[in-house]
Amino acid sequence: MTNIGIIGLGTIGSGVVSILKNNSELIEKRTGIALNIKKVCNLHKDKAESLGLIEKHTTDYKEIINDKDIDIVIELVGGYEPARTIIEEALKSKKHVVTANKAVIAKHGNELFKTAEENNVSLLFEAAVGGCVPIIKSLKQSFASERIKSIYGILNGTTNYILTRMKEGMSYEDALKKAQELGFAEPDPTFDVEGLDASQKLAILSSLAFNHKINDKIHTEGISKLSKLDIKYANELGYEIKLLAIGKKLNGEIELRVHPTMISKSHELCSVINEFNAIYINGENITDNMLYGKGAGQLPTATVIIGDIIDIANNNKILNNSFNDITIKDINSIESRYYLRLKVPDVPGVLAKFSKVLGDNNISISGVQQKELEKEIVPIVILTHKAIEKDINKAIKEIEELDIVKEKPILIRIEDM
Amino acid sequence: MTNIGIIGLGTIGSGVVSILKNNSELIEKRTGIALNIKKVCNLHKDKAESLGLIEKHTTDYKEIINDKDIDIVIELVGGYEPARTIIEEALKSKKHVVTANKAVIAKHGNELFKTAEENNVSLLFEAAVGGCVPIIKSLKQSFASERIKSIYGILNGTTNYILTRMKEGMSYEDALKKAQELGFAEPDPTFDVEGLDASQKLAILSSLAFNHKINDKIHTEGISKLSKLDIKYANELGYEIKLLAIGKKLNGEIELRVHPTMISKSHELCSVINEFNAIYINGENITDNMLYGKGAGQLPTATVIIGDIIDIANNNKILNNSFNDITIKDINSIESRYYLRLKVPDVPGVLAKFSKVLGDNNISISGVQQKELEKEIVPIVILTHKAIEKDINKAIKEIEELDIVKEKPILIRIEDM
Repeated sequence: MTNIGIIGLGTIGSGVVSILKNNSELIEKRTGIALNIKKVCNLHKDKAESLGLIEKHTTDYKEIINDKDIDIVIELVGGYEPARTIIEEALKSKKHVVTANKAVIAKHGNELFKTAEENNVSLLFEAAVGGCVPIIKSLKQSFASERIKSIYGILNGTTNYILTRMKEGMSYEDALKKAQELGFAEPDPTFDVEGLDASQKLAILSSLAFNHKINDKIHTEGISKLSKLDIKYANELGYEIKLLAIGKKLNGEIELRVHPTMISKSHELCSVINEFNAIYINGENITDNMLYGKGAGQLPTATVIIGDIIDIANNNKILNNSFNDITIKDINSIESRYYLRLKVPDVPGVLAKFSKVLGDNNISISGVQQKELEKEIVPIVILTHKAIEKDINKAIKEIEELDIVKEKPILIRIEDM
Repeated sequence: MTNIGIIGLGTIGSGVVSILKNNSELIEKRTGIALNIKKVCNLHKDKAESLGLIEKHTTDYKEIINDKDIDIVIELVGGYEPARTIIEEALKSKKHVVTANKAVIAKHGNELFKTAEENNVSLLFEAAVGGCVPIIKSLKQSFASERIKSIYGILNGTTNYILTRMKEGMSYEDALKKAQELGFAEPDPTFDVEGLDASQKLAILSSLAFNHKINDKIHTEGISKLSKLDIKYANELGYEIKLLAIGKKLNGEIELRVHPTMISKSHELCSVINEFNAIYINGENITDNMLYGKGAGQLPTATVIIGDIIDIANNNKILNNSFNDITIKDINSIESRYYLRLKVPDVPGVLAKFSKVLGDNNISISGVQQKELEKEIVPIVILTHKAIEKDINKAIKEIEELDIVKEKPILIRIEDM
């Protein structure tokens, strides 16, 4: 019998309780493990009452941490504090910890893993990335022998839902409103739409894929400035735009970034629509592997939390990876192809002017398209060959200073996968 | 230090050796586990020599099974015998066993799991299904709390490759030839193209998904009789044809079958093309989850074999599920929608004749399309509403006896997912 204590009875916590209540016989049949909820902690006792757990309820999390019969603590408080303190104290009391808290793992994971190792217990966090997609376990176990070269993730359901609607012609504002109506976006959507959620998840994935300490200083751009015009033009050129979390290891250097990215329509990741998440992996031996599923939701998330609990109950202890520090490659030194949209007057010599700026900055053009006329102002779309980010940024600055350019140029990175 | 013995140094065995040689430092860094190849067994000593393992080589597998320092035996001989005997003897010698052998697991898994349990060791087999797709571990661990309702698998890369080419307009014969040229199909392709490979894999998956003893008496149809005409017509109607391995649990009954299946073009599984495999899962709490990747190949397969080895080294022992017997629902009692193609003369009253036969057998028509004229013989495509398999079979027999029907009718099941 494995005794667990649950701290936090919000949506996810209630989901864990409900699955354990309904399916514990099934779990035991499949795994040989009997799980028992020994205590639950929540500020409001009503919640524990409604879950039929009033006799196991406490408002003081220390009662769970100090209970010597509890083997595993499930932290589902969320946010940075007191979640971090709870996890730390639990580990120091030699309890294994399972959490869904991406924020704490992305920011404090390195120290917490160290604490777990020092106390000979495990800290697992499958639910922190990709909802019910078993990506953490796959990286830590099934692919433990694999030198991974790249990870491409659609890690945020909100933005993927919005981009799916925009591809159908909706404006960003309308698509966001629709996502909010359906509960896919928060009233304040900043954390999702600006890419911060995806960025925390990438920090966690990258650490496991490339064996380094978690580093959450990731170049991050969201989708809030994306125009449906660019989605349309991208489409005409054979691309779709996805908010990709990109992790690559090349010549010993690690590149991590989150931004709207043009990818070929024929790529498997384009089939990932609406609120779905997916993680696409390429390694030395495993190529084009994808895990796909719902990235959020009460019961999917609770399911993989229970998977982590079972893993600990089965294993006794799973290594908490402690890797070396890394420096993420500066965004200015990355190499990419680029999509560039300019608005210029429809007069002779215009193309020559900005072509010269691009050429002077070592950027070679692979294609130019003039789009429909708008009151003598023409949108021009340029695709470049591979170029260095700092060169393209310098070129854009110089282009902005040309008197022919009527609006801030739009820049979208193109990823060849 | 975990000592392993490898029996069989063919393609996959050599792959395991090669990854362990190159990446054992990485494995130890990630998992804390040091793996050591203690002995290898192969009939031809040249192979061991070429892998630099001549000092560890034996031609007698019993030397591995009787080596008291070996913890885990990797069976990579393939086929039914002596593979089954080797696995059994290894388990009885209290060795954990890892295998990639789907044939042995599908046919003898139940007894072998029992032997493993009796000897308090594990028998793992991730590589037996879906190549490097971590579906077994996901079912046994991440989704251990989940009541799974359905599994749809594209489990055979050969047939999926052939169907992808046929969709582009190639004939079955040409597509098979192309697959053989590329090494995706064997010189004798029967086992793949007749669905037998997918059927063995489904038997294994179903056991884990629905908690029953492995039952390999599965209704199986292959793709060798499929015409590109039907693929074209299916396409015009908004469908694609995939060789699906279908497992469903409905009202306590389990349905297992492998056959060419029409699925809506908008379904995620249609994006699975060429030699790729994918497993699509729906459960009570987890919906629309998909694992996708290469279903075969030396190094992908070897990678997940090493994942199993790590799992055992980590866990000491993982439960070998021992479930109850099941009866698979008889194929004649399943319910499906159907696509039916007939060739009939273009004369009045034809439609009335076979409509009557269908109606008399409780089959209601949802659509009829007359295709292009071929010398006064018209192909007619009929889509039905849901009907019972035995009714449609009876109707087809009666239709075949009508003097207006010029060719054996073609029947393809349509799956609404």
